[in-house]
Amino acid sequence: MLTGIHAAFIGGDARQLEVIKKFIELDAAVTLIGFDNWESNFTGAVKRPLSADVLRDVDALILPIVGSDDKGYVESIFCSKPLQLTEEILAALPAHCCIYTGIARNFLMSVAAKQNLGLVELMDRDDVAIYNSIPTVEGALMMAIQNTDFTIHNSNSLVLGLGRVGVSMARALHALGAHVRVGARKSSDLARIFEMGLTPFHIDELSQQVDDADLIFNTIPHVIITAKVIANMQHHALIIDLASKPGGADFRYAEKRGIKAILAPGLPGIVAPKTAGQIIANTLSRLVFEQTGNRRNRNGSQG
Amino acid sequence: MLTGIHAAFIGGDARQLEVIKKFIELDAAVTLIGFDNWESNFTGAVKRPLSADVLRDVDALILPIVGSDDKGYVESIFCSKPLQLTEEILAALPAHCCIYTGIARNFLMSVAAKQNLGLVELMDRDDVAIYNSIPTVEGALMMAIQNTDFTIHNSNSLVLGLGRVGVSMARALHALGAHVRVGARKSSDLARIFEMGLTPFHIDELSQQVDDADLIFNTIPHVIITAKVIANMQHHALIIDLASKPGGADFRYAEKRGIKAILAPGLPGIVAPKTAGQIIANTLSRLVFEQTGNRRNRNGSQG
Repeated sequence: MLTGIHAAFIGGDARQLEVIKKFIELDAAVTLIGFDNWESNFTGAVKRPLSADVLRDVDALILPIVGSDDKGYVESIFCSKPLQLTEEILAALPAHCCIYTGIARNFLMSVAAKQNLGLVELMDRDDVAIYNSIPTVEGALMMAIQNTDFTIHNSNSLVLGLGRVGVSMARALHALGAHVRVGARKSSDLARIFEMGLTPFHIDELSQQVDDADLIFNTIPHVIITAKVIANMQHHALIIDLASKPGGADFRYAEKRGIKAILAPGLPGIVAPKTAGQIIANTLSRLVFEQTGNRRNRNGSQG
Repeated sequence: MLTGIHAAFIGGDARQLEVIKKFIELDAAVTLIGFDNWESNFTGAVKRPLSADVLRDVDALILPIVGSDDKGYVESIFCSKPLQLTEEILAALPAHCCIYTGIARNFLMSVAAKQNLGLVELMDRDDVAIYNSIPTVEGALMMAIQNTDFTIHNSNSLVLGLGRVGVSMARALHALGAHVRVGARKSSDLARIFEMGLTPFHIDELSQQVDDADLIFNTIPHVIITAKVIANMQHHALIIDLASKPGGADFRYAEKRGIKAILAPGLPGIVAPKTAGQIIANTLSRLVFEQTGNRRNRNGSQG
């Protein structure tokens, strides 16, 4: 339970509603900032404008996945007015307060450091990345089915990278009957790929491996699917790039060669916003519970 | 090889191109009727108008999946003029000729019976139905991912019927991490469902089983998801009906209750026309090879 904890939410998208719902269920005191246009049917949450006053007794300040931009602006689909955080406003937060965001840019990092506030980047966490790999993989499967005239089953599918998304992607493709080869660099990854019943290859051999590939799923966040690699692909091959922007493929050359390549970051929020919201809600409610107690004790506030 | 066998194709869609390609590869003599607008790059196929003359030495007459309608009309996406088969035209076929179609309606059945021609309905075959279950399942997964805000993984998914599609559907859902319950009637099916690691239930208990279901995949071709069943469903539940038209759900009542229900027949030709074409091509080339020899011998033609 989050009884006695005051959580303030600033902005967000459909995912944030799941988090708010969970916090209310767990009996937190919830303040919503930048939700003017949202017709809430949640009792127990209070809407407030953004001001220093509102933040004075906040234990956990919860921002959207994308956090704020470098000028402190926070996006909200529930508010038409711009929402700007400033150093002055955030100075009102109590010393034991912790800021939770998906990703932190310079603005948040510098304010948190200067004011000695806690700052947690959820997307940096292994557990969140693994949970998020589930909707990511389902989104990638959907795109593969939509964008080809053949089945995933019996296709030659390459997965590049055996990280948190790569493991899930390879397993799902294998389960649907694809012939799965996984490219990696570390010898322990190559061993794990073999153990999973899949075919490992060293990522340096990518350009030889692609020549019979039907589907290529990339999870490695630098340009690895170069023009030289694309030149060896079949014309019907489809590249789905799950790495964060700018992705791992030479999209310009793929287009020139007539090979379809799709950059697909942020799939969880697109294909399964409810599940994506629940992932954040579960992680965040646990973290806020643990950290608020710790930080209050450390800062000599009431425990 | 199909050397020495004359196959005539009348009409069809993108799938038929895979069949034609395969027959040419296997060295059949190929005549194309109703492909006027198709810019062929296949050498070895001859385009002809529909007439009795063209059919005189045909060993295998190959119609589209949907066959002809009750007046003998055959659909072709490659031809703007109507294509009508008549008894007079088909009377030109040699006695050993066999007609291959996906489904046969009255017209084809009566002509084949009257003239003692072979008639094979591909969609009636177990092997074809099992192969086709692969693209059907991928299409159903795609629709489930597209039409919900939650993941298949960790969902409560019901599959109704353990036939050729039901088995594939249940296995794929299980592999993607859903909690799968399968409704069937036969005790041997209930045993098989248990053996697969899934949860069986008797289809008579459907209205009690749906109350926590997120996804319902029906494969039983009569109205089983009645208003009474739908009344017990959660509001976010999604029904995907894979049974042939008119499907197995009360769509009127589902709409009234605001529950999304999608009738999705013919998925293989929609989501994976190339794979669907290859399924037909492989089955048909084997059948034509076996049956042409048999029928020629039986009818005293040249073997």
